Amino acid sequence: MERGIEKHNSVTQLELLASIKAEAEQIDKKMQSFLVGEPRDLYSAAYYLPSLGGKRMRPYVTIMCGRMFGDVDEQLYLSALSVELLHNFTLVHDDIMDKDEFRRGHPTVHKEYGETVAILAGDLLFSKAFEAASIAEERTGAAGIVRQLSLASIKVDEGQFLDISFEGRHSVSMEEYLRMIYLKTASLYECSALIGGLTGGIVSAASRSAANENQRGFLAEYGKNLGLAFQIRDDYLGVFGDASKTGKPVGNDLRRGKKTLITIMATGLASGTQLTRFESVLGNSLATAEELNGVISMLKELEIDTKCVVTAKEYAEKAVESLDTFPQTRVRALLQALAQYASTRES
Amino acid sequence: MERGIEKHNSVTQLELLASIKAEAEQIDKKMQSFLVGEPRDLYSAAYYLPSLGGKRMRPYVTIMCGRMFGDVDEQLYLSALSVELLHNFTLVHDDIMDKDEFRRGHPTVHKEYGETVAILAGDLLFSKAFEAASIAEERTGAAGIVRQLSLASIKVDEGQFLDISFEGRHSVSMEEYLRMIYLKTASLYECSALIGGLTGGIVSAASRSAANENQRGFLAEYGKNLGLAFQIRDDYLGVFGDASKTGKPVGNDLRRGKKTLITIMATGLASGTQLTRFESVLGNSLATAEELNGVISMLKELEIDTKCVVTAKEYAEKAVESLDTFPQTRVRALLQALAQYASTRES
Repeated sequence: MERGIEKHNSVTQLELLASIKAEAEQIDKKMQSFLVGEPRDLYSAAYYLPSLGGKRMRPYVTIMCGRMFGDVDEQLYLSALSVELLHNFTLVHDDIMDKDEFRRGHPTVHKEYGETVAILAGDLLFSKAFEAASIAEERTGAAGIVRQLSLASIKVDEGQFLDISFEGRHSVSMEEYLRMIYLKTASLYECSALIGGLTGGIVSAASRSAANENQRGFLAEYGKNLGLAFQIRDDYLGVFGDASKTGKPVGNDLRRGKKTLITIMATGLASGTQLTRFESVLGNSLATAEELNGVISMLKELEIDTKCVVTAKEYAEKAVESLDTFPQTRVRALLQALAQYASTRES
Repeated sequence: MERGIEKHNSVTQLELLASIKAEAEQIDKKMQSFLVGEPRDLYSAAYYLPSLGGKRMRPYVTIMCGRMFGDVDEQLYLSALSVELLHNFTLVHDDIMDKDEFRRGHPTVHKEYGETVAILAGDLLFSKAFEAASIAEERTGAAGIVRQLSLASIKVDEGQFLDISFEGRHSVSMEEYLRMIYLKTASLYECSALIGGLTGGIVSAASRSAANENQRGFLAEYGKNLGLAFQIRDDYLGVFGDASKTGKPVGNDLRRGKKTLITIMATGLASGTQLTRFESVLGNSLATAEELNGVISMLKELEIDTKCVVTAKEYAEKAVESLDTFPQTRVRALLQALAQYASTRES
């Protein structure tokens, strides 16, 4: 049996990370030159967050999904750029709404430039995302790139609204939670994969063509499940992660009262006494490290850490299987390894 | 001599206003059905400002410019909707930045729903604008609609940044001011006219075609000059307007220290003593009605009111002339009357 993640262990995690890094450098260069304009202070503020780095996972998905249909050309990088710009836009505005003061180890845009400029810088990144997508669409004649980007931006907005409104609610169902993380996070991965398939191959060689309807369905499945695996691993790391690797304080999500897979599992599995103890920490910004660690131990006794790992792995395997009908190339192996990485990463 | 505004006095202002109203009703209906979704509270917040009315001048420009190239079809309304959605997005975010509490006689979105929801509601209107534009572009095959919308959204963002930064500066040159109002206001009118020309005629009849490059240039000129006339009239009304008609307190712009055509002309024309008096009111939120009225009388003595009227009229005439090469239809007459109206309206 050679199905699933095991199939492509010829691509090691090191090879994957090297490939991501190489593409990230290309995207970073293009992003820098794309975010130049007047007034300079506005463009500096817009470029501030992108300049602080990031994994560039979403554009990597676009580039690799496109590459399954032909060589990489300029337009594919523009499509990839559009999803990264959209992602950065959401971070800038989310940080304002969540009143977060640090990201990527630096002050957030609104802390550095003030809220007014941060709103405008976010809006500018949003506009530039659509500029990049519209250029890619015009040059390739690949209908659907902009449409998909607009649908994803609507979904991300809806997801952020749900995420915030969940914070004020006592309980959230598993179904509601999965819907929220699909909208807020996975929909942009879905879009990234899809527009890779729409852009790729069209211009690069006459003998190749972009993804057909069937293939688009598989790409969307891949992106969606990758995104879910990615987010669930994020939830896991937010509670059980090693702060020295994640760069985020232990139990940060618990302190803020965010509804994550962990809180939902805990609500379902804990006894009355355990739940009382859990809820004394949840959303309590004054909870001590000792109280937090006690609750984290309790969550481990309930095996919620293991259950999270299993759930993330299930979505990663779905992502891997979504690509099974595509030619068994190195590019496919990298995309499949990416799904595995998303569900097991330590940072 | 039958050039300019005088040429089409067969279209009365009443006819123009009736035509605007009829199209506004169409746009309002489409906007309402386009802004439905889940979570409902988010869509309610996004639809709140559009539901409070507005002149719908920008979509009117799109529809009429499109109609010069053929019958109006569904796609032209989608293009028109996209500019109105983009306009409403900018108002929602601008009101947050400017800390404005009222618009169209009602509390602003952030006063009604809180700032977090207002940011998301604005972002949603932005996304929906691009969704509308991308559907119009896909259905007509009219390349450029989304691209133009993204370029306009970038310019509006740059213009808002300049407008805000001008408030903190002692003086602003006429050139800087004109650049700012082009970016902040006129660029979206330019886009509205242009995408009307791009969308119009393509689908409606095989024998018609959208605007060619030459015609696109004229449409852009029309929209730009219309927008400048509109904004300069806005500046005029903000100081010399009748509060019972404009719905804005007399001298509001002066109190806030906004840099408008009036402040720039005053800086150039006032004597030392007059300037001191003027600057004692400018940006002074505590200025009394008596002080404000005194300064407004002084501005009238300097004939700044008349000079504003003349300047707005000049741009309106440029707008009218931009359409001179188009067939002399009723639609053209309405667009030309609109330019005249923009520069002479009382509210």
